[in-house]
Amino acid sequence: MFSLTCPQKGLPVTGRHLLTDVSLPALVVHQNALEHNLHWMQALANRHGALLAPHGKTTMAPGLFRRQIAAGAWGITLATAVQSAVAAKEGIKRILMANQLIGRANMQIVADMLQQHQVDFYCLVDSVENVRQLGEFFARQQLKLQVLLELGVANGRCGCRSDEQINALLAAVKAEPALELCGVEGYEGVINGERPQIDDFIERLVAVALQLKNAGVFKRTQPLITASGSAWYDRVAQAFAQQQARDAFLTVMRPGCYLVHDHGIYQQAQQNVLARQPELEEALLPAMEIFACVQSVPEPGRVIVALGKRDIAHDDMPVALRVWHGQATQPVTLDERWRTVKLMDQHLFLAGPTEHTLQPGDIIAFGASHPCLTFDKWRYFCLVDETLAVTEVLETCF
Amino acid sequence: MFSLTCPQKGLPVTGRHLLTDVSLPALVVHQNALEHNLHWMQALANRHGALLAPHGKTTMAPGLFRRQIAAGAWGITLATAVQSAVAAKEGIKRILMANQLIGRANMQIVADMLQQHQVDFYCLVDSVENVRQLGEFFARQQLKLQVLLELGVANGRCGCRSDEQINALLAAVKAEPALELCGVEGYEGVINGERPQIDDFIERLVAVALQLKNAGVFKRTQPLITASGSAWYDRVAQAFAQQQARDAFLTVMRPGCYLVHDHGIYQQAQQNVLARQPELEEALLPAMEIFACVQSVPEPGRVIVALGKRDIAHDDMPVALRVWHGQATQPVTLDERWRTVKLMDQHLFLAGPTEHTLQPGDIIAFGASHPCLTFDKWRYFCLVDETLAVTEVLETCF
Repeated sequence: MFSLTCPQKGLPVTGRHLLTDVSLPALVVHQNALEHNLHWMQALANRHGALLAPHGKTTMAPGLFRRQIAAGAWGITLATAVQSAVAAKEGIKRILMANQLIGRANMQIVADMLQQHQVDFYCLVDSVENVRQLGEFFARQQLKLQVLLELGVANGRCGCRSDEQINALLAAVKAEPALELCGVEGYEGVINGERPQIDDFIERLVAVALQLKNAGVFKRTQPLITASGSAWYDRVAQAFAQQQARDAFLTVMRPGCYLVHDHGIYQQAQQNVLARQPELEEALLPAMEIFACVQSVPEPGRVIVALGKRDIAHDDMPVALRVWHGQATQPVTLDERWRTVKLMDQHLFLAGPTEHTLQPGDIIAFGASHPCLTFDKWRYFCLVDETLAVTEVLETCF
Repeated sequence: MFSLTCPQKGLPVTGRHLLTDVSLPALVVHQNALEHNLHWMQALANRHGALLAPHGKTTMAPGLFRRQIAAGAWGITLATAVQSAVAAKEGIKRILMANQLIGRANMQIVADMLQQHQVDFYCLVDSVENVRQLGEFFARQQLKLQVLLELGVANGRCGCRSDEQINALLAAVKAEPALELCGVEGYEGVINGERPQIDDFIERLVAVALQLKNAGVFKRTQPLITASGSAWYDRVAQAFAQQQARDAFLTVMRPGCYLVHDHGIYQQAQQNVLARQPELEEALLPAMEIFACVQSVPEPGRVIVALGKRDIAHDDMPVALRVWHGQATQPVTLDERWRTVKLMDQHLFLAGPTEHTLQPGDIIAFGASHPCLTFDKWRYFCLVDETLAVTEVLETCF
């Protein structure tokens, strides 16, 4: 079903069943949950009249990008020039790089991409100096570069804070014939705040975009307005669904983590979404798990698992969900008495009841938080069906 | 000089100079420092009559494994079956897997490796159940598996804690004709303690090994005794240099991080080594840096760098070392007023003086802590000379 010249972590070795044939630890995506999430978020965007450009940096799996496009996505969002070039090579025709394009070699990667592939590409600008560098580089290459003005917040990440910054940037872009200003971008996910601050920022984003449109700074009649990570997409969707935004702009949402969801921060974020919008039924399902073997049971109540920081996100501790004992084909739920207490590069320390039946070789399914820092630990991952048979092996391109 | 069908992060795009031609961020290894460290640690092992099996999990770069072997290493240590198979495929003939071999697919990977390559392979055992599984599996494959008894400590990681566990394990190994007990292993790096606890553990390791040798449990006249991470290698070397250990065993040290060193926990550990052993002159040099571009300077005293948790270890915050302004070819040192205050997936937040001259496109060299969790973020990295010209591109196999 799948062959490489050398074994790879997380891949089938002798057959295709996760409990017997796959080299563990393995990153596993449950295909039913994946399909559910894929269509759920696309339907949400559709209902709000928004276009979906899912953030591809989460998985960097072209096989999943293609599923997202097939399900109706307008394009794929990416974070870097290299990620964009990978997506273009894999056939993605519209790419929103939700970052500044920085560094001569990275500009060359984008220039080569634009020349080799028919890509509708956008990136962000927030500084006069970067605009000057981009304008000079792309003019020399005789290429046009489509840019979006990034709006930021005080104490936030990138993006213009003040009207003065915005005006200076507009003047700088206007002075560079190689650059085309095509819209406005913001990312509410960097705001340290709750709903009022989030709503204020999105409202300001729409107001600034309308103001710039009225001032005639955009090259096109329907410029882009884009925002939304994976925690506040409901508020962005509602703001974008307002008549004045829908009439004036192509409204583009960019959540990424929704596709595989998680058992940590995005599960919590999802509960917050549902508390705000109870009408959003059948919410996202955790589709991503990491399977690993018990390695050692050296002391009562201490279990060492062959799983480490090189395999799973470690901002939050992984959550032990279920165990398959010995040759068992049905798992037993691990209750909250089992906790991950330490994570090393290649080992996980699980604390649990003094009396237990876990043995070396038993297989545990873990939940992680969050997906972006879990997927980047893997070059390949397995899609599995409800019987835990591997139905497809997908590659990541980090 | 190097071509791939698609751009890869951290690699040359248009030429071979780090400041102009390489897609940043990039993992960079300074070859002079690398060469220094390579020979320094080999010389230390030689002086103590110990064999060196550097831990390869740190870099997982076969190109560096081969340099280590060429410099005199006895073998390469690895952490998993997949890592071991990679090393064997890349021509490494002696592999110490400093972990239990767990899971049917992983056992198959090792069995295939033993059949396809002439590898002198060792792994650890610490539980009767695992010994039973290994014995059954390798007997069925008509293969012999060389194992080392792992000695552990209370509240530590894997390994036998008590004499009862050791005796049960010895009996279990004896009952499995496919297994050959070849020595004893310990890892002092998991001990939460200072020098007395470390010294006690190594002393116990030697005592247990001698006791087992006297009891005639090993299959060979010179069994292995092995220990040592990258923080206490001096104490292990001194214990292994004692006459009774040298006479009875092949003494094997397994530090890994020494090769590229770091700007954090291992720099601190190295200072501790030198405080204990002032005679160890010309100590390890930090050979690993991560180069990245300033992305945005949106507020006074706040600089956003295009570098994130996907590029660099984040247990400790990266340290900004030097900056190249604009087209400058000489860097300016960044003093301690510059601090990394936040790290996101693809962005780093640097706090510094309100008045500064950093601009988007400027290039900053960062130090990281530690190497294992930095290398695993990269599929390729650049070796550079003192002019920052890329002399070689090396691949990692995580």
